[in-house]
Amino acid sequence: MGRWEPGGSSRLREAALELFLEQGFDETTAGEIAQRVGLSERTFFRHFGDKKEVLFGGSEEFQREMIAAVADAPVGPSPLGVVASGLAKAARFFPDEARDYSRKRWRILGENPALQERELLKMAAIASGIGAVLRDRGVPEPAATLAAESGITVFRLAFERWLAPDEHRPLAEIERAMFVELGAVVAGS
Amino acid sequence: MGRWEPGGSSRLREAALELFLEQGFDETTAGEIAQRVGLSERTFFRHFGDKKEVLFGGSEEFQREMIAAVADAPVGPSPLGVVASGLAKAARFFPDEARDYSRKRWRILGENPALQERELLKMAAIASGIGAVLRDRGVPEPAATLAAESGITVFRLAFERWLAPDEHRPLAEIERAMFVELGAVVAGS
Repeated sequence: MGRWEPGGSSRLREAALELFLEQGFDETTAGEIAQRVGLSERTFFRHFGDKKEVLFGGSEEFQREMIAAVADAPVGPSPLGVVASGLAKAARFFPDEARDYSRKRWRILGENPALQERELLKMAAIASGIGAVLRDRGVPEPAATLAAESGITVFRLAFERWLAPDEHRPLAEIERAMFVELGAVVAGS
Repeated sequence: MGRWEPGGSSRLREAALELFLEQGFDETTAGEIAQRVGLSERTFFRHFGDKKEVLFGGSEEFQREMIAAVADAPVGPSPLGVVASGLAKAARFFPDEARDYSRKRWRILGENPALQERELLKMAAIASGIGAVLRDRGVPEPAATLAAESGITVFRLAFERWLAPDEHRPLAEIERAMFVELGAVVAGS
């Protein structure tokens, strides 16, 4: 869920997404992306380390923001409540105007197992970071890891729902509904 | 959590684990492993496709067994109950006599991020397979994915606990305790 960014590299990013969707990520070169918007390959590499960065640039910032949001969340009734509160705050990372970009990005990932793996490892790193933050907040194991992993599962499902063509609710609202679903699934067992 | 196997390739496997622990996975060659037990490199490759297979051989069988156990679980009170019942059955994959091997394997993985990633992707594939099996059993989304992911989180934590030096309970018993912990974490939110 790379960051949507206005201005600057946005023309290159837009062209890259188009080409990835038209002909596949692996089949697209940095040179082609640049060419589509009348720029040189060299200019492309001033904006992005490689073409993967078009899709994953901003990931580390997102990761830090998610973990910091949990670290800064007010004391809650439970570790999972703290995670939920942090995720709700971090949802501002995905405003409504980023939805179209995120949908395109998701379709590109859906067609490329290597990119999906990278996304999965990113989410696992965030879960691990949130677990550490909860332990720092005094939550014992295994509660800290269970809450962190459950929170990330909720986030992932809420995010996928947010991208659905018929979905209009903001991410934070979908997250709340998904935490309720999790409660029902676990309580029913 | 590659399969522990008696006989056959067990001498090579044992030698490989020793060397991975002594000098690191990346630093160890197939030739060295074979040499330690007086065999040729060619013999090593008759037993293993590569040195990674020493640690991940049997993974696909384990994956199939976990998913099949959930598919065959009796109708339960809830999707998560079905997952729990499947995991309990699949725990026979890790009998007490496999614990020493699994502990060594885990230490090797702990020192090698690339191997950890592979393990993580393996677990994600199992979660995804269990989600599909639940949908086949008529469980709607998002309950199917929430139950599958929660079950795999419980399995992972139970498995790590099973490997702890002071831990003697069988895996299935630890899983049961971990499902109770998950219930407490989610109910408290």
